[in-house]
Formats: sequence, C-alpha cells, structure tokens
Amino acid sequence: MSDIRAVFFDVFGTLVDWRTSVVQQGPKITFGKNTEIDWEQFADEWRGMYQPSMESVRSNLRDWVSLDTLHRESLNVLIKRHGLTALTKYEIEELNRIWHRLIPWPDTVDGLHKIRQHYIIAPMSNGNIALMTNLSKHSGLPWDVILGAEIARQYKPRPEVYLAGASALDLQCSECVMVAAHNDDLRAARKIGFKTAFIPRPTEYGRDQKTDLEAEEAWDFTAANLLDLANRLKA
Amino acid sequence: MSDIRAVFFDVFGTLVDWRTSVVQQGPKITFGKNTEIDWEQFADEWRGMYQPSMESVRSNLRDWVSLDTLHRESLNVLIKRHGLTALTKYEIEELNRIWHRLIPWPDTVDGLHKIRQHYIIAPMSNGNIALMTNLSKHSGLPWDVILGAEIARQYKPRPEVYLAGASALDLQCSECVMVAAHNDDLRAARKIGFKTAFIPRPTEYGRDQKTDLEAEEAWDFTAANLLDLANRLKA
Repeated sequence: MSDIRAVFFDVFGTLVDWRTSVVQQGPKITFGKNTEIDWEQFADEWRGMYQPSMESVRSNLRDWVSLDTLHRESLNVLIKRHGLTALTKYEIEELNRIWHRLIPWPDTVDGLHKIRQHYIIAPMSNGNIALMTNLSKHSGLPWDVILGAEIARQYKPRPEVYLAGASALDLQCSECVMVAAHNDDLRAARKIGFKTAFIPRPTEYGRDQKTDLEAEEAWDFTAANLLDLANRLKA
Repeated sequence: MSDIRAVFFDVFGTLVDWRTSVVQQGPKITFGKNTEIDWEQFADEWRGMYQPSMESVRSNLRDWVSLDTLHRESLNVLIKRHGLTALTKYEIEELNRIWHRLIPWPDTVDGLHKIRQHYIIAPMSNGNIALMTNLSKHSGLPWDVILGAEIARQYKPRPEVYLAGASALDLQCSECVMVAAHNDDLRAARKIGFKTAFIPRPTEYGRDQKTDLEAEEAWDFTAANLLDLANRLKA
C-alpha cells in the first residue's frame, strides 16, 4: 500500500450527517410558515430524489448542471407537496443552502487532519465546487484540493468522475484510495483501478437503516471510522 | 468592500520565489553532470520562455496542455543549450518538479492564514492542479480550493480564467479580489470586474529588477506584503 498518494472521500453520508442537518435547520428557516411538517420525512424525500435527479445527466439526456440546481429542482417539488408555498425566495434559497452547512460525524474532522499528514486529501463528491468549498469553510473539512463531479461535468458512479480526479493530480488510479460509506461507490471506483476503503455510517438514513450496514466485498480497507482508517493507512 | 467573498492569488512571483528555488535546487539535482552552469541565468531563461510558451494556447493554435508540459518543453531546450545531456530521465523530471517545491516569501504563509479567516482563498495561477496541490503540500499554502488555468483550460490573462474561478464559487466578479505582484494580471482581472490588490515583489527577477516595482494604476488595494493586505482587507 506504500504507493498510495491521494485519498478521495465521498462526502454526503460518509463525512457529514445530511439527515440530522436538514431536520435541525429546516424548522428554523421555515418557522411560522407551516408547523405540520415531519422534517425526518422531508429529509428522506429530498435525499430520495437525489439519485434520480442525476440520472438525466448520467444518461446524457441533459447537459451537466450543478447539484445545487438539482437540489433546488427537487426542493421546488417538495415545497408544493408539503404546502410550504408561503416561503420567500430568500427562505427557499436558505433551505437549499442547508447542503452547504452539513454537520460532520464526530470522527470526521480529526480523521481528515490525520490522513492529510501523509496523503493528498480531496472530496470525490457529486456536490459542486461552490457547495464543497462552503461546506469545507463551515464544517472545517481541511481539503488540499476540491475535485469531484464538477471537474468531470458528470456524476458518480460514472467512471469519468473518478478518472478526472486522478488525472487532475497526475496520478495513476492505483495511487488513489476511494473512501465511502456506500458499497456502490466503491464498486465503481474499484472497477477503474482505485483502491477502496469502507466506513459504515449505520444511522445515515436514521435508526431503521437497512442498506450499507457493512462491507459487501473485500475492500482494501474496512474501518470503524476515519480515525481507525487513518491508523490503517499509516500501517 | 464588505461584499468581498473570495480572494484569488497569483502564485509564481507573488507568493513564492521561483528564481531562488531554481538556483538552490538546480545544482543539487544536476550535481556532477555539468558544473559550469550559471543557475541565475538558467532560471531567468526558463522563466523567460514561460509567457511565450502559453501563447499558442491563448491564441487557440494549440489545445490546452498543462504548465508542467510547457515547463518540460522549455526545459528540453535549455538542457541542450547548456549541455546538460548527461541527465537521466528521472533527473530531468526532478528539475521540472522544482516548480512543485517553490519557496514562499517570508510573509506568504502567515498572510494567507490571516486572510483565510475572513474569505475563501484560492490560487488563480497558470499552474495546473497537480502542481498547485503539490506546491501547497510542500510549502504550506492553506488553500480552501484550487482554481485557475486548468479549470478554464486556458491561460491568464485570457478572461475565461478569472471568470471560471468566480463561476466555480458561484460568485459575482465584484465579490472577488485578484492579488498579484504583476500589474498586467491586475489589469486583466479589473477588466472583467474583479477587485484588485497589488503587492510589490521587487526581487522576483533578482536585484536588478526593472518591472512591476510599484502599482501602475490606482488598484483597490496596494499593500507592502500579504500581512499588510490582510489588515487592509479586514478594515
């Protein structure tokens, strides 16, 4: 493993708790506009539209648009569905910007700092550069460089995204590790030659989560959290 | 000035002393191969080929290639000119990678940390992403995000480069400051609506430097160094 030069991270779910962030910030932004909303359900519905919303870009039916735009389109649907029509344009934008202010898991920031001592670290996320930069400023994610979907103008798990990240750093795929809490992400990264690391995030989708509770393949690394992964990468 | 959100920096000359770096590292890498080289002249010749080498890309005669590639092409010419033909491929590559290991000016790292407390900071350099990332790791330049020529696949002072940086952060040009020790860079940035900041680096080209000794226009900020600029930006 001594040839590793860069460690790439999935972000939503792997490094930050998007669900709790939506549940905490949503009611504050919409205070007084509609008190009937179940924000856990709202968060799940919003995230449920995430994969389908990228599909038109992946299948080349639509030119690349940023995740901020896709999040906003999904939000517009949810606003109607949940009767949040009294919101101002500013409040809608603030809701959409929750994705720029997500809460890191407890081990995330320390883990990234430790891994950064030995390797280049970068997000390999479907989030756009502005979103990733603002999130990094807000939550203290100490990236060396921001790579991911926008560089490739395509969305994971399309291979172009991982390949563009390695290429931007002038590295071979075998010199790169992909870290994710999602087995599908790692399958796509392994297919083009990345090393792989799985970290379980068993409450990403709440207490009743059924998927990605454990590694489904013999990934190069399986770790309890980022601090554990930092130790394994050093070994 | 309270609408400023991001501060972009020219890198070669403005933040790092490329000339001293070449003069210090060149003789070590080529030790025993040719002791006759005047490394100050070598550095000046190499840098002298920098602007012309980008011109074919700027004028669309050539598809975008990275600055690592252009540096290497110029180096190949210099190797022949200076009789350095005994170098191995690895040693040539090490010479080219001097640009990934440049020495910051004394105020650079502290200044960037101070400015970063209040704004997004990013390089707006003609250096490619891999070069900027490695330089950041080597010299401790604490970027929030790496933007610049490679994002635009074009070279400064073409407006596309500055515009791509602002666009990647989802900012208006008026929310961005360009910092440089080169008046031409600031002229190009001002033309498309960036705010501008000049810092003199009167020994970038050695003790006999004739150009860019002072601000040639009434830039939005003129500062003695990055620490001074950090104070002015805060005000």
